[in-house]
Amino acid sequence: MLQEKPISLEVTGAALTELWSPRVLGQVNDQYIKVAKVQGEFPWHAHEHEDEMFLVLRGELHIGRGDEDGGPVVLKAGEFFVVPRGVRHNTSATVETLVALIESVTTLHTGGDETALTRSIAEQLG
Amino acid sequence: MLQEKPISLEVTGAALTELWSPRVLGQVNDQYIKVAKVQGEFPWHAHEHEDEMFLVLRGELHIGRGDEDGGPVVLKAGEFFVVPRGVRHNTSATVETLVALIESVTTLHTGGDETALTRSIAEQLG
Repeated sequence: MLQEKPISLEVTGAALTELWSPRVLGQVNDQYIKVAKVQGEFPWHAHEHEDEMFLVLRGELHIGRGDEDGGPVVLKAGEFFVVPRGVRHNTSATVETLVALIESVTTLHTGGDETALTRSIAEQLG
Repeated sequence: MLQEKPISLEVTGAALTELWSPRVLGQVNDQYIKVAKVQGEFPWHAHEHEDEMFLVLRGELHIGRGDEDGGPVVLKAGEFFVVPRGVRHNTSATVETLVALIESVTTLHTGGDETALTRSIAEQLG
């Protein structure tokens, strides 16, 4: 996946039409760079062996964690948070939110659980 | 490196006092998340085995590449570009520019060349 020219995370994300359906925009080493448009709530899941980085471009993302104390993490535009491997988490947004993701090329966004929202890597590359 | 709360890339970057001196803010899998304040020109170098992702937060970054045709890549705020492993490149900015970087924990920012601007990983963690 050789990148030819600069890509705007926010412009590409804003053009997405399906919620919770990440799009792969690039690759750095063994990590994909993805963007997603989200609103509502995504199911709880965990990635046993992989960390997941969330960077909010627009809106506000809530990340609930199975090990949380003090409530969910709330990410505003420009802020990032890394959910460590093995930690059960869910994401939600009350307003339409654009999120960039950095995660291993092997990571499934719904973790070990297959749900109606699961999109394969092939679909995310589409 | 367990992250306790959200981190703003731009706010952290704006507070940096030394130019071209990346600061490690987090880690996702085997990649560091860094931020740097840059202006002027950084020496040409290459990373033989590692890709390097640049995401401009503020300002404008020019990336010259040894294999370029059509001139340097110009990144505006919100845009990213991945320089593939093995490609000689240099970065420059005419205005003060904040850049987020995603790169392997093993990557030295001046590549194989030790220069006056080289900062060790330990310094970048400091």
